[in-house]
Amino acid sequence: MDPARAEALLGFLALADRLKTVERRGRVVLPGGGTRRENSAEHSWHLALLALLLHREVAAEIDLGRALAMIAVHDLVEIEAGDTYAYDPAACATQAERERAAADLVFGGLPPDLGAWLRGLWEEFEAGASAEARFALGCDRMQGFLQNVLSGGLAWQEHGVRRADTAGRMDPAKAVDPVFAQLIDRLYARARAGGMLPE
Amino acid sequence: MDPARAEALLGFLALADRLKTVERRGRVVLPGGGTRRENSAEHSWHLALLALLLHREVAAEIDLGRALAMIAVHDLVEIEAGDTYAYDPAACATQAERERAAADLVFGGLPPDLGAWLRGLWEEFEAGASAEARFALGCDRMQGFLQNVLSGGLAWQEHGVRRADTAGRMDPAKAVDPVFAQLIDRLYARARAGGMLPE
Repeated sequence: MDPARAEALLGFLALADRLKTVERRGRVVLPGGGTRRENSAEHSWHLALLALLLHREVAAEIDLGRALAMIAVHDLVEIEAGDTYAYDPAACATQAERERAAADLVFGGLPPDLGAWLRGLWEEFEAGASAEARFALGCDRMQGFLQNVLSGGLAWQEHGVRRADTAGRMDPAKAVDPVFAQLIDRLYARARAGGMLPE
Repeated sequence: MDPARAEALLGFLALADRLKTVERRGRVVLPGGGTRRENSAEHSWHLALLALLLHREVAAEIDLGRALAMIAVHDLVEIEAGDTYAYDPAACATQAERERAAADLVFGGLPPDLGAWLRGLWEEFEAGASAEARFALGCDRMQGFLQNVLSGGLAWQEHGVRRADTAGRMDPAKAVDPVFAQLIDRLYARARAGGMLPE
């Protein structure tokens, strides 16, 4: 490998390391009790597991390599743009523009072939432009919801989120495939039974 | 999907969540300065990125979906067995047995088809039984080394690790493909230049 290419790959991996310090609103329960906020790197890994479990359950034909590659890069722009909380309208209004600028920076440091491939995967995910992109979106939203249920709905309570507020985010995930609808409805039932998400 | 299958999938995802609290020795540099220990979930994600960058660079033909699936599950047994520090001989001596017992528990809760598939991927990784498994091993060891270099070699210093101690772990990674050897040698050069890893 050309030395400049090797340096560019190592530089990208060093930059990517920062996703481990981008905090989401959802929480991880700690072994000794208490919680901490989940970061976008571990969220991305959890999402990959979800994709492993579901890629053969949905009606669409899913190319697993393509879906997992998309999942690995789907939040990388947050290194520069930060995580945008789904229930913060002001942040959501500027999200697309901030993330495009971030994508220039994050993917622009890679050799052109790899930069174009990974940026293309991120754009495909954002646009829901393929079966894999819609599948990954279903996994992404379901993982965020699951994380809230696993941590007793703490992030919902902290931000005053009610059941109706979640529909705009979860209905598109349920629409991806009946399997997503079934699993997400099951999580809604747990949230209701646990008093985690007020009506 | 059968309700029992849905419950088993959600139960596995809840169990897997605990990998986010399994700490490795390597450290993540925090934005405000200082470091914290990396966890095995975010390590697994970083590894997936490394696989994206390198799977077309190595001589062997790599099935990306298979490699990324293997990477997503390669550390799951640590939920029960904990992370085993590569430079702790006592822990390494019992590692295989502890991890087999953990695999029974972690993969045994899944529906049989998925449990057998994911356990098979983990065993394939452990045995280096395919081009994807050897590729994933190269990525795994290189990521651990990279993480030390990114955090100034703090974990090496904490545990008195010297350059020669790392050979048993890094030489097999370098042997996977000349591309791994080139990148790892580049990281060694950085560690030496930064005084991170004593001779």
